[in-house]
Amino acid sequence: MTENTNGTLTSLRPRVLSGMRPTGRLHLGNYMGALYNWVKLQHQYDCYFFIADLHALTTDYADPTSLRESIRDVALDFLSAGLDPEICTVFIQSHVPQHAELFTLFSMFTPLPWLERVPTYKDQQEQLREKDLNTYGFLGYPLLQSADILLYQPDYVPVGQDQVAHVELTREVARRFNALYCSQPTAAIEKAREDHSDKEILTAEISANSVVTGILPEPKVLLTPSPKLPGLDGRKMSKSYGNTLMLSEPEADLRAKLKTMVTDPARIRRTDVGNPDICPVFDLHKVFSTEETQLKVRQGCTTAGIGCIECKGWLADSIVREIAPIQERRRALEADPGQVDAILWDGSARARHRAIQTLQHVRQAIGLE
Amino acid sequence: MTENTNGTLTSLRPRVLSGMRPTGRLHLGNYMGALYNWVKLQHQYDCYFFIADLHALTTDYADPTSLRESIRDVALDFLSAGLDPEICTVFIQSHVPQHAELFTLFSMFTPLPWLERVPTYKDQQEQLREKDLNTYGFLGYPLLQSADILLYQPDYVPVGQDQVAHVELTREVARRFNALYCSQPTAAIEKAREDHSDKEILTAEISANSVVTGILPEPKVLLTPSPKLPGLDGRKMSKSYGNTLMLSEPEADLRAKLKTMVTDPARIRRTDVGNPDICPVFDLHKVFSTEETQLKVRQGCTTAGIGCIECKGWLADSIVREIAPIQERRRALEADPGQVDAILWDGSARARHRAIQTLQHVRQAIGLE
Repeated sequence: MTENTNGTLTSLRPRVLSGMRPTGRLHLGNYMGALYNWVKLQHQYDCYFFIADLHALTTDYADPTSLRESIRDVALDFLSAGLDPEICTVFIQSHVPQHAELFTLFSMFTPLPWLERVPTYKDQQEQLREKDLNTYGFLGYPLLQSADILLYQPDYVPVGQDQVAHVELTREVARRFNALYCSQPTAAIEKAREDHSDKEILTAEISANSVVTGILPEPKVLLTPSPKLPGLDGRKMSKSYGNTLMLSEPEADLRAKLKTMVTDPARIRRTDVGNPDICPVFDLHKVFSTEETQLKVRQGCTTAGIGCIECKGWLADSIVREIAPIQERRRALEADPGQVDAILWDGSARARHRAIQTLQHVRQAIGLE
Repeated sequence: MTENTNGTLTSLRPRVLSGMRPTGRLHLGNYMGALYNWVKLQHQYDCYFFIADLHALTTDYADPTSLRESIRDVALDFLSAGLDPEICTVFIQSHVPQHAELFTLFSMFTPLPWLERVPTYKDQQEQLREKDLNTYGFLGYPLLQSADILLYQPDYVPVGQDQVAHVELTREVARRFNALYCSQPTAAIEKAREDHSDKEILTAEISANSVVTGILPEPKVLLTPSPKLPGLDGRKMSKSYGNTLMLSEPEADLRAKLKTMVTDPARIRRTDVGNPDICPVFDLHKVFSTEETQLKVRQGCTTAGIGCIECKGWLADSIVREIAPIQERRRALEADPGQVDAILWDGSARARHRAIQTLQHVRQAIGLE
């Protein structure tokens, strides 16, 4: 890793940053939507993955009892799924105080309407009616995300389609920071600053158009596959629907639960033919089973050659093949909590090392050092 | 200093905390409104005084050029006015990252309406129309103040009457924190937490009424004299009116400026009698001159025994007597910038030491450690 003249950190591999809220053990939907991709990305990019414990507080500040355990569970899922602390940096957000510092600095120049118009703001308030989300922190959470990201100056942020708006806000924050603090002041900017007129300063900054590079490069979106996994009831797999299969689900429980999963509702008797294209079980086959198994299922189902129980057994085999090695690693890690602590400690120290550098450049640009 | 069982820091002397924005060199109004009191308080209390550089950004984020110099100027004013780093702690807010951390944690449970209803929020937006104050940080600045204060668990916050509302918010934040994270959960609280219903949790917390002491004691207001000093034009002395006399004003400039100061407008000729009770110059006498000089002025003015020039000369003498030793110390400090850096460095380290302890208790209570 080298540092170039304008203070931007560079690395040989492009850098990637992503985080996940500690909401407890991951289910297969969480796993396929993010962690599965992360395990692949770590071989190609310089990856920073974090447990977003501060973000958990934006929606769950009133119930702190489970936070500690949830952080531990997510850490175990991360490591047992295959994140390798030798080649990527796994850390806990709140163990890097620079997240809060950069968030606080960003807050100073971020217009309120930028946050009020983030699509998920009103959406989540409506979806989570039983929660009190009318807090200052909930309004600010996309800005905290911007700080999370820009602290590490990543080239890419891997997200599903639904999170592209958050990365767009991050890019806007980076642009505004660079325009305010990193552009060479022109005569017009100097004059506006003397007159203490913010509007003129910004207008002058923009018309000067002198921002080629800044301290905070704008990260790009790395669109990653995020299949919507159906849960046992056919709706999207989600903790709040109680229809999940866990990444750490014991095999017997997994097989028992799958037996109860809804299928093509038109296939009532064993002798009826089924339609895999509208069957939630087949949606899971598409994610977890080989092409060969999928073909076998389609053939058997559409000819009533197999029953749903048989089909679900094959699905269980496929899922077990994916998650058994993960569960084995989890058991080993659970038996050695000191190792997990050490990994998170090291990762957080590595993350701090980078975060401190960014923050120093940011503070210098603002005039705090 | 000892630490008692519930994690509250105690000290032999009651603790006091206050801060000031670095808006450049202080004028006499700033000095008499705060710093003059602080110099006295340091002998009676365990005092923490800080330069609120993060707060400066809430209103001046768009003009970073002068921040560094302003911080230095305020530090010089603090020390030359007589704050003694041997008996009080003088530090820079942004050098203690825990301010931003505690602000971020507080944001999670602080209702937006608490901030929207702070009286100064709308006031200042109207008064500072040329500034862009529609930012997330400006809305949050009273919460950042709450974090500034509660980080040091002070017994008292010395403020003028106009800032009592901010301390009240701080007390509300402390209460809410203690209720959420430090009360012994009753069965009703446990159940509400299991149901993930914030409203029920809060209701149960309040009805449990089990909050005797918490990690964050509610600080009390210490009302300190904050005389409104008139400026040269008779309006309140203020940087934005350009009517100030600086604490570091050279004597010759001070005398020259005072000669131009407005007086009782009815006293036109030297032979007219004047009315000290409506004369801004006399208001300054009341602050800076001895009883004896004030009597002499009243006598001379109301009998036309002295002219305004003579009266102003005596005022200049009184002000010079107050500020000459301050200016002498300032010159010595200016000649030794390394010493000032060392004092701020030490003070910030001391402040961090205490802040880290508070934050650790806070993080434990929330479940982050």
